[in-house]
Amino acid sequence: MNTSSGIQQQKETIRIETFSDGIFCIAVTLLSIEIGIEVEEGMTNESLAIALLHKWPILLAYVISFINVLLAWIGHHSLFKKINTTNSFVMISNGVLLMLVALVPFPTKTLGLFLLTGAFKTAVIFYTGYFVLISLAFRLLWFAASTKRSLLVQEITEPEIKAFTKNENLGLICNSIIMIVAFFSPWTALALSFVMWIYWIAMG
Amino acid sequence: MNTSSGIQQQKETIRIETFSDGIFCIAVTLLSIEIGIEVEEGMTNESLAIALLHKWPILLAYVISFINVLLAWIGHHSLFKKINTTNSFVMISNGVLLMLVALVPFPTKTLGLFLLTGAFKTAVIFYTGYFVLISLAFRLLWFAASTKRSLLVQEITEPEIKAFTKNENLGLICNSIIMIVAFFSPWTALALSFVMWIYWIAMG
Amino acid sequence: MNTSSGIQQQKETIRIETFSDGIFCIAVTLLSIEIGIEVEEGMTNESLAIALLHKWPILLAYVISFINVLLAWIGHHSLFKKINTTNSFVMISNGVLLMLVALVPFPTKTLGLFLLTGAFKTAVIFYTGYFVLISLAFRLLWFAASTKRSLLVQEITEPEIKAFTKNENLGLICNSIIMIVAFFSPWTALALSFVMWIYWIAMG
Amino acid sequence: MNTSSGIQQQKETIRIETFSDGIFCIAVTLLSIEIGIEVEEGMTNESLAIALLHKWPILLAYVISFINVLLAWIGHHSLFKKINTTNSFVMISNGVLLMLVALVPFPTKTLGLFLLTGAFKTAVIFYTGYFVLISLAFRLLWFAASTKRSLLVQEITEPEIKAFTKNENLGLICNSIIMIVAFFSPWTALALSFVMWIYWIAMG
Repeated sequence: MNTSSGIQQQKETIRIETFSDGIFCIAVTLLSIEIGIEVEEGMTNESLAIALLHKWPILLAYVISFINVLLAWIGHHSLFKKINTTNSFVMISNGVLLMLVALVPFPTKTLGLFLLTGAFKTAVIFYTGYFVLISLAFRLLWFAASTKRSLLVQEITEPEIKAFTKNENLGLICNSIIMIVAFFSPWTALALSFVMWIYWIAMG
Repeated sequence: MNTSSGIQQQKETIRIETFSDGIFCIAVTLLSIEIGIEVEEGMTNESLAIALLHKWPILLAYVISFINVLLAWIGHHSLFKKINTTNSFVMISNGVLLMLVALVPFPTKTLGLFLLTGAFKTAVIFYTGYFVLISLAFRLLWFAASTKRSLLVQEITEPEIKAFTKNENLGLICNSIIMIVAFFSPWTALALSFVMWIYWIAMG
Repeated sequence: MNTSSGIQQQKETIRIETFSDGIFCIAVTLLSIEIGIEVEEGMTNESLAIALLHKWPILLAYVISFINVLLAWIGHHSLFKKINTTNSFVMISNGVLLMLVALVPFPTKTLGLFLLTGAFKTAVIFYTGYFVLISLAFRLLWFAASTKRSLLVQEITEPEIKAFTKNENLGLICNSIIMIVAFFSPWTALALSFVMWIYWIAMG
Repeated sequence: MNTSSGIQQQKETIRIETFSDGIFCIAVTLLSIEIGIEVEEGMTNESLAIALLHKWPILLAYVISFINVLLAWIGHHSLFKKINTTNSFVMISNGVLLMLVALVPFPTKTLGLFLLTGAFKTAVIFYTGYFVLISLAFRLLWFAASTKRSLLVQEITEPEIKAFTKNENLGLICNSIIMIVAFFSPWTALALSFVMWIYWIAMG
């Protein structure tokens, strides 16, 4: 490969990453879109204050999803930093991941709306299961990128590749465990998500 | 043309492409916006699970449109890689294409909502017909760009131009056939879309 | 001014333009967001086809606004190409313009929803009046930029400045005339918009 | 630190800023999304005109929030101009700030919908309180960045750091005062916001 086409391919990778960034960015902002109070006849200062306080499940779901998508964005970025050029397989896996990310508002709304209802367990299983899918898509993307050494940047070493693979596997396993826990105790599952974030952030 | 104004014009082309990318990116993310479950009185874990499963037509429409817009984005990009400078005609054709892309959520919703109703055939004809329009806009854009050799990048060869023209024609013909098939058998039409994607991806 | 701070200021201008581009891009894509068919009991292929055809006023409003925002984007860009550095006044005028652009979906929906009702005239006056406001914001922005020669790029000549001023004035006058016409004949006003576009594009 | 990794880290900072810009841009454009008139039977030109005029509280809330988010964007930018590299703490604080910015449409809608109801005071307290939270997030972000001198750009002087800290504190204090005033007189609180903007803009 000559240098000029190498630069061309790197440009392509940057372009795909920019597009992906855009989707992460819009998905995370759209999470807020349906959060609102409905006007009812004769609402007073007290009744609005109470109505606002009663919005906490929706707001909690918003906060959880915002953090999840932000962490996914950071993960996506640190994965793409390791990629030099892309092929069709990488493109498709990335497309699958983006398709899932763009739909995060759906499980988020479901979680928020059913948090205090009799359908709470199903809502949490659906939500945590959705992030198992996202982990799988990440794992697939990394599989697509890491099986061909020529797709990765030159500076990367074999141990670094292995460490990243381990990391992606760990994410998948953690999310799967959280989903399984949700079948028994939804609140424990949500608490475990929280613990996992602390871990990711501490690992940085 | 001197070099400085050449660079200026290339910058303009990049700017138009960035704007177009933004529209593709937002259109694809907005597809998800209305997907959600409504809360009803006394919903249980079972009834929510069933309600979620019953969302499959909407989710199928989402997946189909996501893939279609992503492929259109890739197609748009590979077309713009061949363009060096733009004129009014290219700008207008590109505007028409973007106008159609930004409205993809409309046929998508129609497809998803009416997939299991007595209006299924009309929904599929509308959906597939919409992508015939998008193919036409692509064809128009390429016509606008390729009729003036000075608009294209210098490196491109005559056979490459012809190959791309053939490619755009093929896309238009395929989409037209799919729409015609939809009049007789909507499911066959959707299946053919699927086959066409495999082909596009394999061609890469 | 030394070169380094000059480059710094140019970077700022680019940043503001990128932000503005983003708002144009999102505003134009959001126009489509509420366009959709509602599911009713027992809809057939025929009734859906009729329902789709009955959407033409909304689609017409969509097309008109898409073109208007796209032309505004082109106008915004050709204005910013003349600006080298910005001050508070330019920032504020630009903010006012963006505030109006981001709200274009509101008059668009109003136009589309009331096109076939007894409130048609008010809808068209509101819509065309809204674009008078946008013209005014453009005029203000250009006033803010052109009164201080040091804000403009060095290459620009006095006749070019005057020509652009004339152009902005012309836009304001045309839009005002269209709004006045709307009081007497709404359809004539919409037709005049169309003529004006042809003119802008031909002038390009 | 060698130069190459320094450039790498600067790139990271630019990337985070671009992502943040995207969220500001989308949040500000989404403010307009639910503004619209509902069609009712037998609406006339007069009744539509009256309905449009009655939208002023929503439009006022829109204008206030648009200005607030735009000023926050400018503030965010002038803060990031002082940052050279980021660490986890800066990333998290920035994430908290973005989470709040993306949710601005919620207090905005609340303000607009309840401006003329008996729940006006609660709506204004909620709105102004929300911007106290945003000021706190800004303060936290600046705390995260300014406690480690190595995170800031080299050119910045100690007095400049102190001046910026004072500025951030001032913003927090002003917003807190406005919120406290809202408990006694909501309209005075909104008027004070207006005075504060003039001040920020004049300080530029």
